[in-house]
Amino acid sequence: MDLALAEAHAAAHREEVPVGAVVLSANGVPLASAGNEVEERNDPSAHAEMLAMRKAAQVTGSTRLDDCTLVVTLEPCPMCAAAAVHFRVRRIVFGAYDPKGGGIDHGPRVIDHPTCLRHIEIIGGVREQENGLLLKNFFRKLRR
Amino acid sequence: MDLALAEAHAAAHREEVPVGAVVLSANGVPLASAGNEVEERNDPSAHAEMLAMRKAAQVTGSTRLDDCTLVVTLEPCPMCAAAAVHFRVRRIVFGAYDPKGGGIDHGPRVIDHPTCLRHIEIIGGVREQENGLLLKNFFRKLRR
Repeated sequence: MDLALAEAHAAAHREEVPVGAVVLSANGVPLASAGNEVEERNDPSAHAEMLAMRKAAQVTGSTRLDDCTLVVTLEPCPMCAAAAVHFRVRRIVFGAYDPKGGGIDHGPRVIDHPTCLRHIEIIGGVREQENGLLLKNFFRKLRR
Repeated sequence: MDLALAEAHAAAHREEVPVGAVVLSANGVPLASAGNEVEERNDPSAHAEMLAMRKAAQVTGSTRLDDCTLVVTLEPCPMCAAAAVHFRVRRIVFGAYDPKGGGIDHGPRVIDHPTCLRHIEIIGGVREQENGLLLKNFFRKLRR
């Protein structure tokens, strides 16, 4: 989560919504990490999770991240949750819960759905306060 | 839909799952089109819809495809349906329904969900038989 948080802080410096993500191998080795790049790439799908998983697939040379864990500072949105199913990650560990935009414990709960083809282990609320505060501070500054 | 079908056929020739997508401007002018490139890019998120919307955002220079229509040969999966919300497309027109993998009329029904922030008009089942047949034939060949 430290590396994901570092990516989130780096995103904030680029004036992106501060979310960071890391893909870990089965042994816990970081394969790829990314921060949000929506503004920089002019691409609303360039969420930290999507970029990190895409990079990890390039690194491993496989479209399947079978034994991998996706670590992310914020509950993934429905797009990223569904992407994690396509990338076949084994586990998602996330920081702050996102009642408005989340897609795992909130909203359409994509991974819980009976049509979801992959069982992904979910661990939410890790260092929740620290992860949430980063986002809160970012949006507080924006509104000033 | 002709252009989307042409992209789907081109994808089949590249041995990709044959799905094609086009983004149309408010006036019905194609801004971008793409076929599935999952195998070619080694990227399970490289669905036709994602690539077409990403290209359209580059063409228009905006992250919002506000007045645009996404035309796709198959019902979008939950990832692509949720991406269409992020890209703020106005309308999705799709061909064959996808009871197993779809995310609009099936599965988590991402766009219908009360937490979904964008109302997107949906027109499904357009040239359904023709669009479905292309996929059926592709998978039949694979199983041989």
